[in-house]
Amino acid sequence: MTERTLVSQLHAREDGPVTVSGWVETVRDQKKVQFVILRDETGAVQLVNPATRPAEDGTEQDAAALALTDVISALATGTFLTVRGELKHDERVKLGGVEIKVGTLEIAAAANPETPIAADSSPDKRMDWRFLDLRQRRNNLIFRVQTTFEHALRTYWIERDYIEVHSPKLMASPSESNAELFALEYFNDQTAYLAQSPQFFKQMAQVAGFGKIFEIAPAFRADPSFTSRHATEFTSIDAEISWIDSHEDVARMQEELLQFAFQAVKDKHGEEIAQLFEVEVQVPTVPFPRIPLAEALEIVKSRGYEVPRTDGDLDPEGERQIAAYVQETYGHQFVFITDYHPAIRAFYHMRDEETGLTKSYDLLFNGVEITTGAQREHRVDVLIEQAKEKGLDPEHLDFYLDFFRFGAPPHGGFGMGLARVLMLLLGESSIREVTYLFRGPTRLAP
Amino acid sequence: MTERTLVSQLHAREDGPVTVSGWVETVRDQKKVQFVILRDETGAVQLVNPATRPAEDGTEQDAAALALTDVISALATGTFLTVRGELKHDERVKLGGVEIKVGTLEIAAAANPETPIAADSSPDKRMDWRFLDLRQRRNNLIFRVQTTFEHALRTYWIERDYIEVHSPKLMASPSESNAELFALEYFNDQTAYLAQSPQFFKQMAQVAGFGKIFEIAPAFRADPSFTSRHATEFTSIDAEISWIDSHEDVARMQEELLQFAFQAVKDKHGEEIAQLFEVEVQVPTVPFPRIPLAEALEIVKSRGYEVPRTDGDLDPEGERQIAAYVQETYGHQFVFITDYHPAIRAFYHMRDEETGLTKSYDLLFNGVEITTGAQREHRVDVLIEQAKEKGLDPEHLDFYLDFFRFGAPPHGGFGMGLARVLMLLLGESSIREVTYLFRGPTRLAP
Repeated sequence: MTERTLVSQLHAREDGPVTVSGWVETVRDQKKVQFVILRDETGAVQLVNPATRPAEDGTEQDAAALALTDVISALATGTFLTVRGELKHDERVKLGGVEIKVGTLEIAAAANPETPIAADSSPDKRMDWRFLDLRQRRNNLIFRVQTTFEHALRTYWIERDYIEVHSPKLMASPSESNAELFALEYFNDQTAYLAQSPQFFKQMAQVAGFGKIFEIAPAFRADPSFTSRHATEFTSIDAEISWIDSHEDVARMQEELLQFAFQAVKDKHGEEIAQLFEVEVQVPTVPFPRIPLAEALEIVKSRGYEVPRTDGDLDPEGERQIAAYVQETYGHQFVFITDYHPAIRAFYHMRDEETGLTKSYDLLFNGVEITTGAQREHRVDVLIEQAKEKGLDPEHLDFYLDFFRFGAPPHGGFGMGLARVLMLLLGESSIREVTYLFRGPTRLAP
Repeated sequence: MTERTLVSQLHAREDGPVTVSGWVETVRDQKKVQFVILRDETGAVQLVNPATRPAEDGTEQDAAALALTDVISALATGTFLTVRGELKHDERVKLGGVEIKVGTLEIAAAANPETPIAADSSPDKRMDWRFLDLRQRRNNLIFRVQTTFEHALRTYWIERDYIEVHSPKLMASPSESNAELFALEYFNDQTAYLAQSPQFFKQMAQVAGFGKIFEIAPAFRADPSFTSRHATEFTSIDAEISWIDSHEDVARMQEELLQFAFQAVKDKHGEEIAQLFEVEVQVPTVPFPRIPLAEALEIVKSRGYEVPRTDGDLDPEGERQIAAYVQETYGHQFVFITDYHPAIRAFYHMRDEETGLTKSYDLLFNGVEITTGAQREHRVDVLIEQAKEKGLDPEHLDFYLDFFRFGAPPHGGFGMGLARVLMLLLGESSIREVTYLFRGPTRLAP
């Protein structure tokens, strides 16, 4: 490896020889002195070079110094290079209180002089050049936050003996519905479908006796929407557990999990998030508030908003209203909406024997749904009835129904969209900003 | 949650009331006493019930006791249930030295009386009923080993400030070659391809200045092979790092990483692996042996095996031979084969200026290739030349070549097949045995 010092480590280092590697953010090429702002994945540092120009009176100059000055003059933004030089602490330098006097400079790969995007480019243009867009410090931070968040989730689960599974994304039949499905030609004239969720397969782990499992993996929806919350490919965070009494056990796990992961993010990145996103990371208290859907609709109505949907569910504005109510009443960013009518839930949600409502919830974070959770129906005869009720043909579901014909524990779980959580955590306007490479109806490249 | 005690915790518990949940493995229904072996995700325990049968002389019996006896007599293998009863330590009980006298028994979901597979069923039949096959203790262990292995990998990386990325699996162009590619109809009459590897996108993270990244995610190959090492969908473990001097830096990271992860597996599961797989987990010493390909071919030849391939690469038997040599000579299960000719490597592998050979390696584990690693060519003009040499049209690669037109650091990485590592670690004969749900040319369900 190049023996480089990370920019974030420079301040703690003593004055003297040092090597840094990174890319050129800006060059100020003054007559007598040249400044380069060099950025790496941990920060930016000022490089300085006393310019050596050809003397007007023809006096011979040091050839190496002339060459170095020329090289720096010609540096394009984005060029990656390694500099060996002298580190000097100097409080007058705004950027970190240090600068490096350039000794030698080695270019790894020079950038085209024209950078195709600028800070004020449109989101679509920035996505065309996502690899340049990601060089921004705040974009880099997004993915470090993602890393910390996911590792905390996995650590929480692994400390509690969950098993990690990798369920297949190629399936012989749809996993959720026949709509919004990507199909492809498989071997032997078979059609394969891309998994819309790991739903069936994470339930399979329960009948396989795995007890508690998780998976973080891509899911695919041929969804033509262009909203800030939808993508055709997204990272789905899933967990499923056995021997629950109701969806309440799932909710309790999820709220503890999120508390743990938000704490990890706050501890590691809280200050930098505050600085770059002007957002204070709030570690949620548990239990999160819970409001039955019927009550939520009443609350929304009493706030003067009439949900225009006829199916009895909340719409996005209704979700924002209930979130505002929860924030005002409980000072909480999260709320579980519970007791959904079967008509607006998947056939596999278990129903409460007394109320007939599903044993399920949606979790809203800052007014946006990030999760659906539920106890699943594990009694195969009931499951078949519920599928029929939805107009589904049990024969097409046979491989799934088989799971429950050879014994099954009561179980449930949730699915959560990673990008939605990150978007809301960082106060961003769209999941596109927090997705490494967004995929939507008109976006398949780079 | 059901307040259950895990079977693994029973031994440490005092005699007295206890609740366990799991599934029926066997029932011994004797006239005077009934035994049930109940398994959960942590182990198996014997339940005992003094049978109460209708008296032949018509004496009235306790109705509840009669009913319980009937329920146990009718229990089918696989039925999931919860038992409340009395725990009793008894050294004569072979299974864990404890048994539970059944008090009440609650069936969660009864199994069909006919179990479609047995221990000696064919692999294909077992895969048809994978959810039952996975109930076997050794299959459960495979996925706990997987969990520990992956968590160790991620922990190693995260402790070293790697960023986790989720690269898209839907692409506008092939990621590796035009062969073995799954295509699907996307929006607006576009064709999308399933990523054969995250290769291009993990390199993109380097030009985006991420420094060090990893990803564990599915990859897809429309590969018609039926070998024990191939699947159409597999979990790919990928890492990519910047500012390397050569592939040697990648190799050093990978060997340390594997040492760390094997240590974690041995610490947590070593005893159980020895017991159920008759395999001693060996934590590899570093550095792993390294042998240039040309030398490896000589060694194989000197062992009496002539590789029949004409392209100068090793074949599977050659790999086994070189592994045997390494085991005999160095007592090591791993070996890096280095210095491959460009003709048998991808166009993006960097070439050594002196030898003209690629700066790349394959890593063999117990004689099977588990990884290809390399330094990548980051100089766009050289990259274009190498693509042309392979008969690739640079225009089709333009989105990828663009990555290198705006500055790039020297970088490299590796991709490693999760299932291959697990197969070899546990001495299994096929990746099918260590994949949650295998996908192959004739296998798309369940």
